[in-house]
Amino acid sequence: MSDVAVIGASMTQFGRREGEWILDLLAEAGEACLDDAGVGPDDVEHLYVSNMASGEFEGQTGVMNALAHDLSVLPAYTQRVDQTSSSGGSGIYAAWQSVASGASDMTLLVGGEKMTHRSTEEATDVIASITHPVEYKHGLTLPSFAGLTARHYLERFDAPRESLAHVAVKNHENGTRNPHAQFQKEIDVETAMESPMVADPLRLYDFCPITDGSAALLFCPEDVAREYTDEYATIAGVAGATDTLVVHERADPTTMGGVVESGSEAYEMSGYGPEDVDVAELHDMFTILEFLQMEGLDFAEKGEAWEMAMDGETAMDGSLPINTSGGLKSKGHPLGASGVAQGYEIYQQLVGGAGDRQVDAEIGLACNVGGFGNCVITTIMEAAR
Amino acid sequence: MSDVAVIGASMTQFGRREGEWILDLLAEAGEACLDDAGVGPDDVEHLYVSNMASGEFEGQTGVMNALAHDLSVLPAYTQRVDQTSSSGGSGIYAAWQSVASGASDMTLLVGGEKMTHRSTEEATDVIASITHPVEYKHGLTLPSFAGLTARHYLERFDAPRESLAHVAVKNHENGTRNPHAQFQKEIDVETAMESPMVADPLRLYDFCPITDGSAALLFCPEDVAREYTDEYATIAGVAGATDTLVVHERADPTTMGGVVESGSEAYEMSGYGPEDVDVAELHDMFTILEFLQMEGLDFAEKGEAWEMAMDGETAMDGSLPINTSGGLKSKGHPLGASGVAQGYEIYQQLVGGAGDRQVDAEIGLACNVGGFGNCVITTIMEAAR
Repeated sequence: MSDVAVIGASMTQFGRREGEWILDLLAEAGEACLDDAGVGPDDVEHLYVSNMASGEFEGQTGVMNALAHDLSVLPAYTQRVDQTSSSGGSGIYAAWQSVASGASDMTLLVGGEKMTHRSTEEATDVIASITHPVEYKHGLTLPSFAGLTARHYLERFDAPRESLAHVAVKNHENGTRNPHAQFQKEIDVETAMESPMVADPLRLYDFCPITDGSAALLFCPEDVAREYTDEYATIAGVAGATDTLVVHERADPTTMGGVVESGSEAYEMSGYGPEDVDVAELHDMFTILEFLQMEGLDFAEKGEAWEMAMDGETAMDGSLPINTSGGLKSKGHPLGASGVAQGYEIYQQLVGGAGDRQVDAEIGLACNVGGFGNCVITTIMEAAR
Repeated sequence: MSDVAVIGASMTQFGRREGEWILDLLAEAGEACLDDAGVGPDDVEHLYVSNMASGEFEGQTGVMNALAHDLSVLPAYTQRVDQTSSSGGSGIYAAWQSVASGASDMTLLVGGEKMTHRSTEEATDVIASITHPVEYKHGLTLPSFAGLTARHYLERFDAPRESLAHVAVKNHENGTRNPHAQFQKEIDVETAMESPMVADPLRLYDFCPITDGSAALLFCPEDVAREYTDEYATIAGVAGATDTLVVHERADPTTMGGVVESGSEAYEMSGYGPEDVDVAELHDMFTILEFLQMEGLDFAEKGEAWEMAMDGETAMDGSLPINTSGGLKSKGHPLGASGVAQGYEIYQQLVGGAGDRQVDAEIGLACNVGGFGNCVITTIMEAAR
């Protein structure tokens, strides 16, 4: 079987998109992606829409059918993919399956979310409904889980609080090079360390913002890709895995089971290991998650990711640049878009389209986390040879 | 590549499930399906949940992650599949892709919806948000589209109003043989013809009810299936296609483009034609849709399905039994469950497990319609040889 290739990518401006709605954002990204690849809408056979909650946020259901109409891809089959915050990564997995199974020779994936028109309370209420109801009733929201996990990590591995600030500072610096990022301003460690407390020890700058935005990727068999371009990427490995959503049942709060499982499956499928990865996008919804994923994916030994971060090894000029896009922290986190936007960044790094953020990369990895590690999808992409 | 097999199926009681919630229903069906196949939860590699609107109906998101925990299938990958009323058919397509692509050797699909705790107005508001906003503002809800289409069909093809009542009467009669059906009572043509007017010429008995329920199917490669059982079915063909959601743009209101397109693709993939099909489940959300699908799938010539219905050819002892389960009309229509329950019925017919509804069948077809024909998935299943 021919490998599955990615031949086009796009993302909209992330941030507050006032007066625009989910369909505007999805259509903008979808159209731009087809343009990027030079593929006409008639050639699209499957259209997947990664979106967690257009019904809850906007009272609009069936967005995939409306988008299929707006993009003129009819009669392409379409479906919405929901895996909470990792809906985008699930979309990559679904798109890969649609091509690898032979069901489609041209699959467009568009991920997006429109959130900023709702109050922070309303938005977080929707998001919080993914957690276990008993834990939630006891105050264990996603930020409080993150706070408890961070405290445990810092104490257990004797890591300084500043190490988390370094994640925020790096991702903000990367964001200044990304014209699509929600925040394009540098911060320093002091600013992060003195920002308002949210869930001890985590402060405002340890959290990603609420964001509107959309991103898209176009998939086809590698032999079809070659008809369009020499500059494409292939999906070397992709896998998803679920951990219990009942966080108090987890054996070790600093181990994300879904990351470990999906990562090792994706490595095995690709034939590559962590040492082969040149650039990675990790799901830094909270700064502490960047460390946990670095360790779960074997980029760092257990308890040592913080040292890599403080040594600058994950910076743009480090041994393994992480979140060159600015990450969720600085680029923003429109739920359904985020995993697709991770794929956008890796694709651009592999085809040499990352502009001021360009690093030298042949193999890239994206790790998209749903819920508080409830489900994780890891994707390994490779530049066309 | 090995064909994709179905080795187990289940469905819960459909109807008003007071005091139970979406997760209760999904877990009941999922567990029963694994039991039916004799497969342990540890063997499940992918879990798909077909559900349109647990967030809108119940304020609960992330049901697939909670279900993965409740069914003890961790670390199986899980994802929610939404294609409005055809979420179940989309789930079959997703499950097929997951096995056919080699991503999973054991995929559990569970579809469900919990709706009856909301008022009819609330429930239909959620469902109506799939329609085009401009058409909706002008009063073109799903029932009014169905009424207009029915009037057009009856006039154009000189069909008597009674022909639609025959669909309701047949499906109610079939429902009396289905212990899981919401309605298990016979009605006569007169009752249907004199029931309250909803959207002229359609009356109450032309519409499916609002329903709670869940259904499940278990998929694996055929060579794996043989390790468990000799009695299984295979997916001979499956395809999905989208028609414009803007109904006034459609060339002919009596032609469902998504049915025609997905049907012909599924026939082509299977190598079978309409004449080979022994039993079919069609999406009779409104009685008129049964005629349109019969014609779109070439079971009847254009404008002649009503004659087949009045001649009794689609009854249990007819040349092509349609909706032996009772259909959406009598069995009920819990959105995300319906397409999976169609698969359940076809599977039971093929493995000889349909009890009082059993017909002689080697090949069966299910047609699941999302929105007002916005997206359609057609599945052709075949008994193991």
